[in-house]
Amino acid sequence: MYSKQVLSFFLYITLKVSGYLMKNLTKMKIVKSANEVFEAFVDPSKIGNFWFSSSSERWEQGKIITLRYDEYDAQGDIKVLEVEINKKIVFKWGDDHIVTITLEALDTSSTIIEITEDGFNKNDDDFINQLLDNKEGWVYMLTCLKGYLEYGDNLRAALVK
Amino acid sequence: MYSKQVLSFFLYITLKVSGYLMKNLTKMKIVKSANEVFEAFVDPSKIGNFWFSSSSERWEQGKIITLRYDEYDAQGDIKVLEVEINKKIVFKWGDDHIVTITLEALDTSSTIIEITEDGFNKNDDDFINQLLDNKEGWVYMLTCLKGYLEYGDNLRAALVK
Repeated sequence: MYSKQVLSFFLYITLKVSGYLMKNLTKMKIVKSANEVFEAFVDPSKIGNFWFSSSSERWEQGKIITLRYDEYDAQGDIKVLEVEINKKIVFKWGDDHIVTITLEALDTSSTIIEITEDGFNKNDDDFINQLLDNKEGWVYMLTCLKGYLEYGDNLRAALVK
Repeated sequence: MYSKQVLSFFLYITLKVSGYLMKNLTKMKIVKSANEVFEAFVDPSKIGNFWFSSSSERWEQGKIITLRYDEYDAQGDIKVLEVEINKKIVFKWGDDHIVTITLEALDTSSTIIEITEDGFNKNDDDFINQLLDNKEGWVYMLTCLKGYLEYGDNLRAALVK
């Protein structure tokens, strides 16, 4: 009667309302224009300065992008669900987690970037560690992004697990 | 029969063993000597480049140090419990939380810094948010420290709450 998508949407809403799904939110001010922050993510020549070592192509709505992390010999695909130029990027990765990057231009040379990752399940045994690892990753990436955009630094790949 | 200190130590061990107290651990590689990383914390002229805006005096074992955060018009005291030059700093702050900073020199120009904060209580209503906020703070500070020591940049006071 209902398609698989509709049923999985209802399941998602049910879990969400019942408090089994949680999100992680991190927010930072970067003294660069919203366009410069946006391009850092979507332009594959820039990502290696602050996050993954490479991104397979320019991020656009509907595309599947392969991200590599040479230092850990790891790679994974993300699906770009939504792009609003200089304002918003939404993608899906991992175990059906949804990441939303929102840019709010404070003026022509500074931007608040907010990253939310949605889809953590309170019933998972390692739920708290998943949230903490995830928080660590986003705070680290955003600070590396700030260092790259404001000063041209490369601070990535230094977290020790 | 027992002193207050002894009883509170037993309470601490009981809570610890029963899993009610948890810690947050964050670890990063910094391409500077252990002495340069150590001095960044204990020398009050350096802290304003990566963490608090000021530190009242040089950190030494037994001292109480006042740390100010001008941007949030906030300040607090820490008690330095232990200092091992270029290797370890232990202090107490907040609600009896113990912070241990450990430096491991990989060679003469690179160091692994590990920070552990101990004393979170699983019974607190906002236990998970306390851990996440704490993780955010340590990852951010360590990345700012890396940016300061390796590039001379100042990335602090940009997290938005």
